[in-house]
Amino acid sequence: MTRVVRLKRRPEGIPDPNDFELSHEQSGVPGPGQLALEVLWLSLDPYLRGVISGRHLNHGIALGSVLPGSVVGRVLASRTSAFRAGEYVLAEAGWREHAVVDADRAQPIEFGEVPARYALSVLGMPGLTAWAGITQIAKVGTGDVVLVSAASGAVGSVAGQLAKRLGARVVGIAGGAEKCRFLSEVLAFDAVVDYHMPSFEQVLAEALPNGLSVYFDNVGGRVLQAALNNLQLNARIVLCGLIDQYNQSARPPGPNLAPVIAARASMHGLVVYDWSAKRPAFLSELLPLVRAGQVTIREDIAYDLSAAPEHFCRLMQGQNFGKSLVQLRA
Amino acid sequence: MTRVVRLKRRPEGIPDPNDFELSHEQSGVPGPGQLALEVLWLSLDPYLRGVISGRHLNHGIALGSVLPGSVVGRVLASRTSAFRAGEYVLAEAGWREHAVVDADRAQPIEFGEVPARYALSVLGMPGLTAWAGITQIAKVGTGDVVLVSAASGAVGSVAGQLAKRLGARVVGIAGGAEKCRFLSEVLAFDAVVDYHMPSFEQVLAEALPNGLSVYFDNVGGRVLQAALNNLQLNARIVLCGLIDQYNQSARPPGPNLAPVIAARASMHGLVVYDWSAKRPAFLSELLPLVRAGQVTIREDIAYDLSAAPEHFCRLMQGQNFGKSLVQLRA
Repeated sequence: MTRVVRLKRRPEGIPDPNDFELSHEQSGVPGPGQLALEVLWLSLDPYLRGVISGRHLNHGIALGSVLPGSVVGRVLASRTSAFRAGEYVLAEAGWREHAVVDADRAQPIEFGEVPARYALSVLGMPGLTAWAGITQIAKVGTGDVVLVSAASGAVGSVAGQLAKRLGARVVGIAGGAEKCRFLSEVLAFDAVVDYHMPSFEQVLAEALPNGLSVYFDNVGGRVLQAALNNLQLNARIVLCGLIDQYNQSARPPGPNLAPVIAARASMHGLVVYDWSAKRPAFLSELLPLVRAGQVTIREDIAYDLSAAPEHFCRLMQGQNFGKSLVQLRA
Repeated sequence: MTRVVRLKRRPEGIPDPNDFELSHEQSGVPGPGQLALEVLWLSLDPYLRGVISGRHLNHGIALGSVLPGSVVGRVLASRTSAFRAGEYVLAEAGWREHAVVDADRAQPIEFGEVPARYALSVLGMPGLTAWAGITQIAKVGTGDVVLVSAASGAVGSVAGQLAKRLGARVVGIAGGAEKCRFLSEVLAFDAVVDYHMPSFEQVLAEALPNGLSVYFDNVGGRVLQAALNNLQLNARIVLCGLIDQYNQSARPPGPNLAPVIAARASMHGLVVYDWSAKRPAFLSELLPLVRAGQVTIREDIAYDLSAAPEHFCRLMQGQNFGKSLVQLRA
């Protein structure tokens, strides 16, 4: 027997831990071409909010289903020559302690001394998202002024660090003094603005005296509108996430687009799935930086699968501080 | 003495003819390097609404000023060797019957047998706007499905015709049966949707069974939102105008941007001033097409300067049908 977490009811608004249910099921047995995994790390990601409601790129899950999610697992048994027992793999196993997965949908993790769990953050989907937005879409370079929202999160913090390495001035937006201090003191962002402040719009404008040339948006809502009010000519805006509306059942209106026309700006929707073919290039660039400590990731770790629902609900309220993970096994 | 139209009061909401005032002033005398013009045609353009309120790209005019606007004039007297009396020129003379302009800011009109007034529409700023959006930004080609709003207007009608010539399927949005009939019967658009219809969103979706790959937006508001709900993957959206909010004093919210992310779409602000260096390329492409009748322009002409205020107010309510012009002299 093994433990799993299922969707008990569809959340309305901000999810509640009682929307989820811990239960037991029989561990599976791998067939030919499959792997049995012991799950070590479970990734909690904002896009899951849309999946729960059936709104994430039109995907959804049925009530009673095991929650989906990326994991880092250790191979317990392999029915393929491509993997051996004891190896670490990245897989879409969901919220469960043990999993049987198709080997051709699992990815080996070969980071050397770098922790395997980074395959869920800086060396995984969030990192690839940041890399694609900063280097491939916005093509950030020296002289750019890059604004990043949700800047202490898994995607935002990597986006900001990459932009700094490319010679940009980087301004981060985060909620609360602790996250802001982390951005300026640990990640050395050039300026940080707390969106909880009543004077947010004004402080943001002061942090961008010459406007922004790139905005990496993870949140939408009033933060996006504030950013659009500070565009340089020909600014590039990467639309990556809309955390602001993830907990809303109806789609709220968006920003007034007059500033986009006035600035001859461009906005680009970013979906990380499109960039999977570039994963080798991304990894060959990021792995040495992470190994050398030149790109870092803050993690917000909960322990034991039973903690996953509450940890996810904290993420949905912006109460996480860094990449949200659940450690299932030491 | 000559007649001019001045801004009497700033309109709130939809402009009223009483916001303008016809008055007389002394005709000017050209100094060295200047031209005296007899104004033949005055162009009325939607961007003027923002100028009146001081909101157009942060430009505005003072109360009591003569309204600005492009004109086609005939040179009465020239104090430069670059122009001779009797020649036709394009100039920013404003709402007046006679004007003195700097010759280096006037452009000669050399269209041969094509009417000089086309320098205000298909062969002028509206045409260049359409050309830049369709050929330079969206880079329309065979296989594209191009949606155009305000499609019977000066910009939209040229955008749609150019897109058709490039091999695209073209769907137009206009208000009212007469404009829609013009688009399908005269301009041979592939489908036309009347935004006045209560079922607009549904009819639009039916006209775009496979979605749109390019949207040329002149209006913003609910029409833009409806377009965003029909995006193909990697759709390109040209943000050219926001007629929907020109008469509003506060900036309304805009569209929800979730579909832009889901479609990995891009949105591009277009300001025609950026494309003036490409005017020769545009003209060399468009002039032969206009001469051959392969690109056409519908015109909505009022007669006499005194009719300009009412004609502009009609434009601001979408009651114009084609390029809005005032003929000052036969």
